[in-house]
Amino acid sequence: MKIETKIERFTTPLYLESGRILEPYQIAYETYGELNSDASNVILICHALSGSAHAAGIYEGDRKAGWWNGLIGDGKAIDTTKYFVISTNVIGSCFGSTGPMSSNYPSDKPYRLKFPVITIKDMIKAQKQLLSNLGIYHLKAIIGGSMGGMQALQFGVDYPNFSDKIIALATTYATQPWAIAFNKVAMEAIRRDPRFKNGNYEKDDFKKDGLDGLAIGRVAGHISYLSPNSMSRKFGRNYVNNDGLFELFGRYEVERYMEYNTNNFSKLFDPMSYLYIIKAINTFNLSRGYDSLYEAILRIKAETTLISFKSDYLFFPEEMRHIYKMMRRNSQEVEYHEIDSDYGHDAFLVEIDKFSYIIKKVLNE
Amino acid sequence: MKIETKIERFTTPLYLESGRILEPYQIAYETYGELNSDASNVILICHALSGSAHAAGIYEGDRKAGWWNGLIGDGKAIDTTKYFVISTNVIGSCFGSTGPMSSNYPSDKPYRLKFPVITIKDMIKAQKQLLSNLGIYHLKAIIGGSMGGMQALQFGVDYPNFSDKIIALATTYATQPWAIAFNKVAMEAIRRDPRFKNGNYEKDDFKKDGLDGLAIGRVAGHISYLSPNSMSRKFGRNYVNNDGLFELFGRYEVERYMEYNTNNFSKLFDPMSYLYIIKAINTFNLSRGYDSLYEAILRIKAETTLISFKSDYLFFPEEMRHIYKMMRRNSQEVEYHEIDSDYGHDAFLVEIDKFSYIIKKVLNE
Repeated sequence: MKIETKIERFTTPLYLESGRILEPYQIAYETYGELNSDASNVILICHALSGSAHAAGIYEGDRKAGWWNGLIGDGKAIDTTKYFVISTNVIGSCFGSTGPMSSNYPSDKPYRLKFPVITIKDMIKAQKQLLSNLGIYHLKAIIGGSMGGMQALQFGVDYPNFSDKIIALATTYATQPWAIAFNKVAMEAIRRDPRFKNGNYEKDDFKKDGLDGLAIGRVAGHISYLSPNSMSRKFGRNYVNNDGLFELFGRYEVERYMEYNTNNFSKLFDPMSYLYIIKAINTFNLSRGYDSLYEAILRIKAETTLISFKSDYLFFPEEMRHIYKMMRRNSQEVEYHEIDSDYGHDAFLVEIDKFSYIIKKVLNE
Repeated sequence: MKIETKIERFTTPLYLESGRILEPYQIAYETYGELNSDASNVILICHALSGSAHAAGIYEGDRKAGWWNGLIGDGKAIDTTKYFVISTNVIGSCFGSTGPMSSNYPSDKPYRLKFPVITIKDMIKAQKQLLSNLGIYHLKAIIGGSMGGMQALQFGVDYPNFSDKIIALATTYATQPWAIAFNKVAMEAIRRDPRFKNGNYEKDDFKKDGLDGLAIGRVAGHISYLSPNSMSRKFGRNYVNNDGLFELFGRYEVERYMEYNTNNFSKLFDPMSYLYIIKAINTFNLSRGYDSLYEAILRIKAETTLISFKSDYLFFPEEMRHIYKMMRRNSQEVEYHEIDSDYGHDAFLVEIDKFSYIIKKVLNE
C-alpha cells in the first residue's frame, strides 16, 4: 500500500456557515492506493474529534498505525488495491489543516480566538474543494464514524449527487444535550485553566506538561467513549497495587487509565482546536438550513448504510434508528446494522472485526 | 413539625477503617418530630454526596426547604407526627460535622490533607455513636438514597440487629468503575486547580468566586445525575437567545444549566470535603471486611426495601437487582421496586411522588 501525506493550499475563499470567510486555507490529507483512469474508484474517509488525516499505514519510525488501519489497506474491507482512499484533516484541527493556531493572513500571528466558528458543513465544503482541485467530482463512498459520520451524512444531505454510497457509524442526526454536556466539561476546564490564557498561549507551552484543562476535559470524553459494562469488564474495582497495599490508599485502575490517556493527549492536541471542534460537534444538526429534519434527510440520494453499537453511550443506537426509520418511510435506499458490542462509542475504532464485513459487502455490491 | 439543629461533640475516639483515629470529633444533626417514651419510633435519614443534616423543613429567612422535605413532615410518607426522625451530616462533610477543614486537635489549624481517609463504614459508625449518646439503641428504619443508600445498606450488614427496616434508593452494592470515572473528573479538576494550593487554601477563599476545579468536576457530576432522555426533554437543542441570535454563537440551554448549578455549588461546598466524600463513595464495597458479597449480604436481618430508577445512569437498576436476587436466594426479607422515571439518578430527590407511597407502606406495615 502506497502512503502519501500532502498539504493542499487554497487561495480561493472558503465561505463559512457563520457568514465569515477563511482565506487562504490549507488541508492536510493522505491517500492510499491508486486513482484509476476515470477517477471512479475514490473513497473519502472522515475522522472523529481527535483524529487526523493519518487513517492507515505506519510511518517510518512510528510504532502506531493510523486510526482505521484495521479497515483500510491492501485486501482489507476498504481495499486499497481497488480503491483510491483519501483521508483529510478537518478545518479547525491541529494536524496540518488550517486551525485557530494558523497564521491569520496577512499577519503572521495566529488567529487564536479570532478564528471563525467552524461547522460540519464547513468541514465538508473544504473537503469537496480539495477533491475538485484533485480532479475528483464524484465519489464511490464516504465513510466515517462519530464526527466522521456526521460529515458523511452532511455530505449526503448537502451534495446529494456527489457520492454513490454513504457509510455512517456511531453518530447522530443532531447532537443531543447529553453529548453537549460532556463537551461542556472540556469547554469549562480549558477556558478556566490559567495557562490557557484566553487563547494567548504559545504553540510549545504544553509540549512538556500538557494543559491540565484539556486533560480534565478528556477524562469526561473518555467516560462517554466507554460504557458501564466495558469499564466493569476492563477495570472492575481493581486498584493499582504499587500505590499502596490497601484499597483505601490506592488508585483504581480506571483512574490510572484516565490519567494515562488524558495526560498524553494534552501534550499532543491543541486546546483551542479542541474547543473549535467540540463546538462543531455541538452545532451539528442535519436540519439546519432546511425546513425540517425530514426535508433534509429526504435529499439524500446515496445508498446509505448506518451502523450503530448497542453499548454506545454517546450517540445512542436510537438516534441512528431515527434516521433509518425516516429514510425507510421515504423509500430511500438505506440499511441499518446494530452491532452487539460492549465497547461503547469506542467500538467504531476498536471492534473493527465486528463491522468490517458490512463495509466490505456494501463496497462490493 | 418541630425542627432542631444540634452539634454533638465526642471525646471518645472514632476508630476508622483505615487504622487511623479521629479524636475528638463532632456530628451536626437535625431531628424532626418527638421521641416516644421507649425510644421505639426512631428513623435515621442518610444524605448523599452534597447533602447536609438539613433534610426537611425551612429555616427562618431561607427560601429553600431541606433536600427531602417532600418526604419528611407531618402527615407525609415519613410522618413526623409518628416518628422521631434524625438526619446527620456525615463525617468528612463541610456542614457542621468534623471534616478536613476542622481543627486538628490539639492544634487549632485545619487537618487539610492530613485528614484521614473516611469510608461509608466510618460514617455509619459515627452515626451509631451519636445515636448511643442520645440513648437510642434500636431503629425503626434507616432510609437513604445514593450515598445515603450505601450507608443504609452498610448499616444492615455491619449491625444486623440495629434496625427493623432498611430502605435504600438509587444505590449499589459496590461502586462500579463507571461512577469512579465520573468522580475522577472532579478529583483531577480540584487537584490541578492552582487556587486549591494542594489544600492550603483559606476557608473563605472561594466564597466569592468559587473554586473552578469544583465547578468543573460538578459539571461531570450533573451529567451522571441526569439521563440522556431527561436532558433531551428538559433542554433539547435550545440555545440561550440573548447570547446571540444565531445558534453558532450562542450557548445551549444545557450549558447554561450546568454553569448555573456548578458555579453556585463551588461557592458553597468545601473542595477538600468533596475529595474526601467522593473517595468514600469510590471505596464503597459491601463485601470489604467479609469473605464475599454473598457473606456480607447474608448478614442483613432488617426487612429491606430496594428502590431503583429505570433511567438512573449513575447506579444502574441492574446493580440494585443484584442485591435483590441475592437476598431472595437467601430467603431474606426483601422487596424491590423499579420506578419508571426519566429523571435519571436525580429521581430520588425530585420524583418523590413516584415512590413516597412505597416508603409510607413499608413504614406502616
